[in-house]
Amino acid sequence: MKTSFLMTPGPTQVPPRVSLAMAQEIIHHRQPAFGNILKNVSEKLQKVFQTQNDVLIFPGAGTGAMEGAVVNFFSPGDKVVFGVIGEFGDRWAKIAEIFGLQPIRLGGEWGKAVTARDIDLLLSSDAGKGVKGVFITHNETSTGVYSDLESIGEVCRKHNVLFLVDAVSSLLAIDCKTDAWGVDVVITASQKALMTPPGLCFFSVSPKAWEYNKAAKCPRYYWDLASALKSLKKPMPENPYTPAVTLIFGLNEALDMIMTEGLDQIFTRHLKLSKMFRTGVETLGLELFVKDEKIASPAVTSIMIPEGIEAGKITGFFRNNGIVIAGGQAQLKGKVIRVGHLGYVDAFDISNTIITLGRAFKSQGKVLNVEAAVAKAWEVYDRD
Amino acid sequence: MKTSFLMTPGPTQVPPRVSLAMAQEIIHHRQPAFGNILKNVSEKLQKVFQTQNDVLIFPGAGTGAMEGAVVNFFSPGDKVVFGVIGEFGDRWAKIAEIFGLQPIRLGGEWGKAVTARDIDLLLSSDAGKGVKGVFITHNETSTGVYSDLESIGEVCRKHNVLFLVDAVSSLLAIDCKTDAWGVDVVITASQKALMTPPGLCFFSVSPKAWEYNKAAKCPRYYWDLASALKSLKKPMPENPYTPAVTLIFGLNEALDMIMTEGLDQIFTRHLKLSKMFRTGVETLGLELFVKDEKIASPAVTSIMIPEGIEAGKITGFFRNNGIVIAGGQAQLKGKVIRVGHLGYVDAFDISNTIITLGRAFKSQGKVLNVEAAVAKAWEVYDRD
Repeated sequence: MKTSFLMTPGPTQVPPRVSLAMAQEIIHHRQPAFGNILKNVSEKLQKVFQTQNDVLIFPGAGTGAMEGAVVNFFSPGDKVVFGVIGEFGDRWAKIAEIFGLQPIRLGGEWGKAVTARDIDLLLSSDAGKGVKGVFITHNETSTGVYSDLESIGEVCRKHNVLFLVDAVSSLLAIDCKTDAWGVDVVITASQKALMTPPGLCFFSVSPKAWEYNKAAKCPRYYWDLASALKSLKKPMPENPYTPAVTLIFGLNEALDMIMTEGLDQIFTRHLKLSKMFRTGVETLGLELFVKDEKIASPAVTSIMIPEGIEAGKITGFFRNNGIVIAGGQAQLKGKVIRVGHLGYVDAFDISNTIITLGRAFKSQGKVLNVEAAVAKAWEVYDRD
Repeated sequence: MKTSFLMTPGPTQVPPRVSLAMAQEIIHHRQPAFGNILKNVSEKLQKVFQTQNDVLIFPGAGTGAMEGAVVNFFSPGDKVVFGVIGEFGDRWAKIAEIFGLQPIRLGGEWGKAVTARDIDLLLSSDAGKGVKGVFITHNETSTGVYSDLESIGEVCRKHNVLFLVDAVSSLLAIDCKTDAWGVDVVITASQKALMTPPGLCFFSVSPKAWEYNKAAKCPRYYWDLASALKSLKKPMPENPYTPAVTLIFGLNEALDMIMTEGLDQIFTRHLKLSKMFRTGVETLGLELFVKDEKIASPAVTSIMIPEGIEAGKITGFFRNNGIVIAGGQAQLKGKVIRVGHLGYVDAFDISNTIITLGRAFKSQGKVLNVEAAVAKAWEVYDRD
């Protein structure tokens, strides 16, 4: 095979335009040419985040943004709620614990979503008294479940708590109306639907969150958002310390591609491709881990591994045959395989993945209905 | 001018080979192909760091490594010493303060070095009782002074304190014999003499530092070095969270260039070019900020701005004429300009910078002896 195509939930495939933009000559980060790019990129990011809030860029991984969202708005001892429905919600709560917060973990069952009602019940109970913030994983990459931010946002407003969302693997793949839904802090990273290599992470911060920021006592320097805002608001926008210049070149190019395609078209594409893929998987005769379509992620799909098949053999077959998919994480290790369909992805990629699923299972002695699956998948694609 | 050539103390010019390596197709960070690169890069980094210690790579800026070096080895309340002879030593001490350490700031006069004797006196005094670590900026980018790590290392061993070095702007530009000189923790970043764009930072960690790490109580998750080591030591080396894959492609290529040139040749080149440049500056009739050649950095040179000349006009002339240099930072703002000569730099770059200095000052009504400066500079280059 000519390539090692990524159908993983991140990093995702990088468009050649983006790669070439990153290969251009480097410039210094404290000169007007870079200041202009930074300003331009920040404005485009506001559109992508659907917000009037400040959007800040840091050199780092998504996990860094998770830490930043904890240390910038809270103090040791603060009571906060985490929706934990998979690996990443769990990681976020762990970070809060390490920095001395008192996280209440809500949820727990992997493959299910935490609902607005769950949160409302908790915040209305004695256990929920004094809670200062609610942390929600928009798209739980480890399971392929997504949360309904709109209804959760309503509950957070009702109880007057800060609403923080990990949109690392969801932004642009799943609609996130930051301002309209009252999300105070949204974090994401470059290597998912933003189609840029890993190494950048982002924060959008509401006026209410900036109020929290003033009172927050967790120690912070690298992830200090107030310092980043101060630098960004200079007449010539800059960063408190050296930004990842070439990755920002790439991001700038990716954002132009995103603006050209349009947010609505991008959301529709992701939804359409995930439906196409889910149809293919079911027609193959495989079982989807997330059966309820209402919470099934348009960004990533987990597929159950049938009794007697080794998950590693399936992901290994894929790797040796030109496509990379992911295995299960933590408690789902060996039980599911995960396919990412976000970012720079189209129907051919979905079709190829369905065919490769068929070939992979066949190599393990399990014959699936590939012809029907491919036909049905394209039918769904052409119909929608 | 065809370009905006960086003669800044970082980011530095990126070789086309490195840029092209970063434009290659992205791969996933949890597949064997990436594990092999990570292993290979880590081994080459050990050579560059001149150490048998583990070298760990993180997505982030040099400032992140500064924070990491504080939180991984110490606890709130710990007494530590910082050599502060400029902006970056000051920043490091500030980070320690934010995380609850008790920093003793030693030094203070910008343009001078902190010596082994200064540290020995302090650690032998009552004020130095109970000190657990000594933090030294190898090359103070804000002034152009470098510290003698060998003698400071001896003092640290004598007093049995941890020795931590910020080699962000020095590694490869100035010799740093990590193991031979007993440096427990060395940090650096990608965008200096490593000739890679900004976005990666590095830690080398000695066995003694790992002992400190076990006892350290500062909160940490993103910068958790023990977690990074655990991932690196897996049969298939990996990272605790998504690494900056394309930057690591670039680094891998840059390290191959570095191995080909050889460490000794690289140190010699930097020394030679800095002598060439200092000769040129003095022959122009300008004053060097660091007069003592024994502490003058082979990586960056600060030049005093004469009475009546506006520093911003000089850096502005440069910017409009194809070369980027830096102004002064903090207390040196407006008083000096700074020229970086590290990484992918040669004698033509130095020669062009001397000529441009002459033209820049001429534009401000101050005529310098450019012809003599260029001739003398090349003479020094050809002689050494």
